[in-house]
Amino acid sequence: MLRVGILGCGRIGNVHAASLMQIPTAKLVAVADAIPAAAETCASRFNVEARTIDGIIRAEDIDAVVIATPSPTHFDLIHALADAGKPIFCEKPIDMSSDRVRQCIAKVSSAGVPFMTAFNQRFDPHFGALQKRLAAGEIGQLETVTITSRDPAPPPVEYLKGSGGIFRDMMIHDFDLARFLLNENPTRVFATGSALVDPAVKDVGDVDTAIALLMTKSGKICQISNSRRASYGYDQRLEVHGSKGMLRVTNIHESQVESATSSGFTMPVAKPFFLERFGPAYLAEMEQFVHCISTGTSPTPNAADGLFAQLIADAAAESLASGQTVDIKY
Amino acid sequence: MLRVGILGCGRIGNVHAASLMQIPTAKLVAVADAIPAAAETCASRFNVEARTIDGIIRAEDIDAVVIATPSPTHFDLIHALADAGKPIFCEKPIDMSSDRVRQCIAKVSSAGVPFMTAFNQRFDPHFGALQKRLAAGEIGQLETVTITSRDPAPPPVEYLKGSGGIFRDMMIHDFDLARFLLNENPTRVFATGSALVDPAVKDVGDVDTAIALLMTKSGKICQISNSRRASYGYDQRLEVHGSKGMLRVTNIHESQVESATSSGFTMPVAKPFFLERFGPAYLAEMEQFVHCISTGTSPTPNAADGLFAQLIADAAAESLASGQTVDIKY
Amino acid sequence: MLRVGILGCGRIGNVHAASLMQIPTAKLVAVADAIPAAAETCASRFNVEARTIDGIIRAEDIDAVVIATPSPTHFDLIHALADAGKPIFCEKPIDMSSDRVRQCIAKVSSAGVPFMTAFNQRFDPHFGALQKRLAAGEIGQLETVTITSRDPAPPPVEYLKGSGGIFRDMMIHDFDLARFLLNENPTRVFATGSALVDPAVKDVGDVDTAIALLMTKSGKICQISNSRRASYGYDQRLEVHGSKGMLRVTNIHESQVESATSSGFTMPVAKPFFLERFGPAYLAEMEQFVHCISTGTSPTPNAADGLFAQLIADAAAESLASGQTVDIKY
Amino acid sequence: MLRVGILGCGRIGNVHAASLMQIPTAKLVAVADAIPAAAETCASRFNVEARTIDGIIRAEDIDAVVIATPSPTHFDLIHALADAGKPIFCEKPIDMSSDRVRQCIAKVSSAGVPFMTAFNQRFDPHFGALQKRLAAGEIGQLETVTITSRDPAPPPVEYLKGSGGIFRDMMIHDFDLARFLLNENPTRVFATGSALVDPAVKDVGDVDTAIALLMTKSGKICQISNSRRASYGYDQRLEVHGSKGMLRVTNIHESQVESATSSGFTMPVAKPFFLERFGPAYLAEMEQFVHCISTGTSPTPNAADGLFAQLIADAAAESLASGQTVDIKY
Repeated sequence: MLRVGILGCGRIGNVHAASLMQIPTAKLVAVADAIPAAAETCASRFNVEARTIDGIIRAEDIDAVVIATPSPTHFDLIHALADAGKPIFCEKPIDMSSDRVRQCIAKVSSAGVPFMTAFNQRFDPHFGALQKRLAAGEIGQLETVTITSRDPAPPPVEYLKGSGGIFRDMMIHDFDLARFLLNENPTRVFATGSALVDPAVKDVGDVDTAIALLMTKSGKICQISNSRRASYGYDQRLEVHGSKGMLRVTNIHESQVESATSSGFTMPVAKPFFLERFGPAYLAEMEQFVHCISTGTSPTPNAADGLFAQLIADAAAESLASGQTVDIKY
Repeated sequence: MLRVGILGCGRIGNVHAASLMQIPTAKLVAVADAIPAAAETCASRFNVEARTIDGIIRAEDIDAVVIATPSPTHFDLIHALADAGKPIFCEKPIDMSSDRVRQCIAKVSSAGVPFMTAFNQRFDPHFGALQKRLAAGEIGQLETVTITSRDPAPPPVEYLKGSGGIFRDMMIHDFDLARFLLNENPTRVFATGSALVDPAVKDVGDVDTAIALLMTKSGKICQISNSRRASYGYDQRLEVHGSKGMLRVTNIHESQVESATSSGFTMPVAKPFFLERFGPAYLAEMEQFVHCISTGTSPTPNAADGLFAQLIADAAAESLASGQTVDIKY
Repeated sequence: MLRVGILGCGRIGNVHAASLMQIPTAKLVAVADAIPAAAETCASRFNVEARTIDGIIRAEDIDAVVIATPSPTHFDLIHALADAGKPIFCEKPIDMSSDRVRQCIAKVSSAGVPFMTAFNQRFDPHFGALQKRLAAGEIGQLETVTITSRDPAPPPVEYLKGSGGIFRDMMIHDFDLARFLLNENPTRVFATGSALVDPAVKDVGDVDTAIALLMTKSGKICQISNSRRASYGYDQRLEVHGSKGMLRVTNIHESQVESATSSGFTMPVAKPFFLERFGPAYLAEMEQFVHCISTGTSPTPNAADGLFAQLIADAAAESLASGQTVDIKY
Repeated sequence: MLRVGILGCGRIGNVHAASLMQIPTAKLVAVADAIPAAAETCASRFNVEARTIDGIIRAEDIDAVVIATPSPTHFDLIHALADAGKPIFCEKPIDMSSDRVRQCIAKVSSAGVPFMTAFNQRFDPHFGALQKRLAAGEIGQLETVTITSRDPAPPPVEYLKGSGGIFRDMMIHDFDLARFLLNENPTRVFATGSALVDPAVKDVGDVDTAIALLMTKSGKICQISNSRRASYGYDQRLEVHGSKGMLRVTNIHESQVESATSSGFTMPVAKPFFLERFGPAYLAEMEQFVHCISTGTSPTPNAADGLFAQLIADAAAESLASGQTVDIKY
């Protein structure tokens, strides 16, 4: 039984708490938040203790810790948990600065502390099944990857200011998926984008519509398109081509009820909310963390995976700014 | 080069004329109609001669004749053409009375004249492909057949009065398809129906919504549902189940353009008109007729197929009236 | 907080226990089984008490009871629980004999005990959404209902002997769905069937392939087809037609991964297991029970719904035997 | 009645001849080919005269001419036909050199001769319907265009040597479609590619897998992916996103017969051959040509459309070579 503590009781902290309640080999012991009332609410919902952040880091009855606090706090928490010898599950991004991410990697490595980065989409049953079949050679040698990801609606412009830009905030998930599927690090990126959804996005130096091409040494190509808006739900699609054919994951509709009227044949919109679309993925990634820590296996995606996705995002942002291709340096 | 004449220059006569223009091994020579103006219009459209009906029956430059005149005239025309030794392609129904159909069969048989009945749906590329794959054993032993056929809109009630009822007028196509797929004559039928689209249909002793079950000696079951109304186009579907799986033909949409908006994902309505949906089938059945007559092969579906479908329709009408199952006697 | 006890710790008892664990307003207190070891295993899995059946019936700390024991025991348990004044959630069938079901209805009615029958498919999110949209008039006046239900594989012939036949054992779910959708009791039934999957099924007096037509006073028609075999998963489909169009629920695939190769475009089989396909439905029906008992609302489907489905099944069995339509008497 | 002559009796010349036979307002008068036997075969197939190329250019009984000869001959034929005052329908590319295309434009312009370029995909019923609905504002302001085009199998490497490379030979169709849909000329292009299908392609300086991004002044983005190989048929898809939603054209299968077995649910491969997939488009573009010339309307796509697509192809080839974005100069 792995005894787990959670730091951060916001939306995502609550998601991880709910996941832990469903995993028979794990036991949520305590939660903490900089805002005590948030910790209390979460604790009472799941019938566990509310403690201080420090109390969880030092707890003897806690074997592993989930970091679900705001990104700027990750760096210090990772260092403190590494010192305390506690395995870490850390929400993305590890840190906005890739230099500081490298410091985190060095720290957990020297401390010998297992570390898992939360790229939950790898654990989506559909995306995961596609990756397994691809890796098993079902469509021969991989040639191209196409990722489409469109949010139902843009976040507030205020949020975008501190988000690091669309590549670091949104497309980073797709950069990780690209690496997961390509099984090879991309070496060059070209990215372009526009503020088409809301002109205010341009004013804060960001774009809301972006396309990036990733190229690998062996000649594989990955195209990723993102938009902050999709009227028809949360659009999440993967398509991979290989020497023998194609595999793809299409959207999942809100329900399987189709209507046919004089307006045509209509299926409901795609599941509109990421927690709804990727609910099973959140559970599966936590199961993976619990399984790895319990069995002494190294969890993936790990801190290096977090770093690599971020380096691609940095290069994409540079490409958007310069209008030219950028080499990705690991 | 098979030289062909057409009797009847209504909508369906024009369809057959257009088909003959596209068949390199056939040549449309002349057309005739009880209304001379109709024959003239058709003849000029296809750049062929307009003759009298008699002129075509006796023509020495015509090898085969298409009967596309109103049903009550079929009986006499079949007899005259048989006497003239001319191969016959006859629109359905051969005759409303199965006794008179038997007389037609006896006549063409004793005259040794090839005869093909126009059940064009057998020649639809999709239905035909399904039948071939079924017959080739792709899904093992056939168990059940499900046919769905819904017209976009009901015909005038005035038409229904002389139509012979939904089973003889509309479902007869499905009875032929059922025989085509079952590869075994059904022995019993149960049919039910209601006037749900238009109460006036009830007043003329007919129904506009009908479901029939056909049962065979070996235990296969076929369910057919018909409606005179479908808001979403001309609904034409087949589904067959066998010991190893299912084969089905789904609807063909007006175009392949799908939209996705806040209303959902929408495909256009099904092709709404039978000439549009079954256009390729009309050409293919005429190619089959030309091929068979040119090569001396017996064409199918033949006059017996026409009779058998009608006998099922008669039994279905009797079942609807009695509320009980009816044995089909061939 | 509704305190619940479960009688019967087989597969379905465990399903209900797991559901109760996920309902915040319910608390599973104890479980019982005629086989004490089964109760112990279940109790330890869910961290609750194992008691005797009697202990649960008489318990003062239990507000409502789930009956998940073998069907022949339902009658006595219902009477005992009614005497104890405990609300009842009862697995279907209430009893194989409709007379005894009537006695149960009388008993719970006179005792004033709420009673819910487990027709879980009403609670499937897809079927339920279809029913709501139909009831809201989205496709106008209902005309026909088509239900397709095919099990992935037949049960052992030994099981079939005591099952009451395909109409009472399998199609009863569809009879309940038909009533749920028709919103009108069918008055006549015609049913037919064959032993096509396994000849041994015939030897025990049953069929494995069956089609039934239900007719209502207002002229609505429902066609139901069942098979004990489907190579491509657990086939569960609904289709309803109304004056303005169609609503349907198509199958849900094992995953959303589509492949395209020289063999064509392939989606995985339908979810093959009823617990997987109807998992959310089991949870939702238990939520409904808990909600109704907690708020003093009468739960549906109720005992009369259980009886009516059974009366249709009885009539269908009679129709299969006689080869003729049978009036359904309520 | 527009009297038409065809220059070039290869595959595509025969396609245009067959189209003309189906257009009531046009009459194919004569065909010519540098190889007399080819002209004879074609002439006898369509029951028209075989003449010399010169004979058709100077014919008084011919109102308009179709150029379907090899690309290097287009330049001289266009000049000769312009001198003869004959409206021209010219296969793409007009010429491999954009300078020479400009000369052709100047020539037909000064001669006042109508000129249509053969970008037939604009006339595909599905692509055309999408463009009309997009232009009508159905999805609001256009934001992105995604074009996927994959040939079933690569041409011989020998052919590729003289093809001008994948952007000028294959993707040029998609560049024209992009302009057709964007309704705005792209100003910059980034293109990348690899020889993944066949290493020999690299040896002749070409790629067989290519992706290009086109950017417009207003910020719209178009992504195009091409491959010389698709195991599952001729893959032709369009997807456009706007402020209110998405429109897309998915593949058309060889037939509408779906199977469901233990291997899953399978639709046949996409129509595998361009003449089969785009058959209706070839007819529709010729109808458009005949209509425009007959009514004195300027046909589109015109010579400038041909030039613009080529300039994008030139820029894409330059981008592939340099690894950087290239401005498109018109």
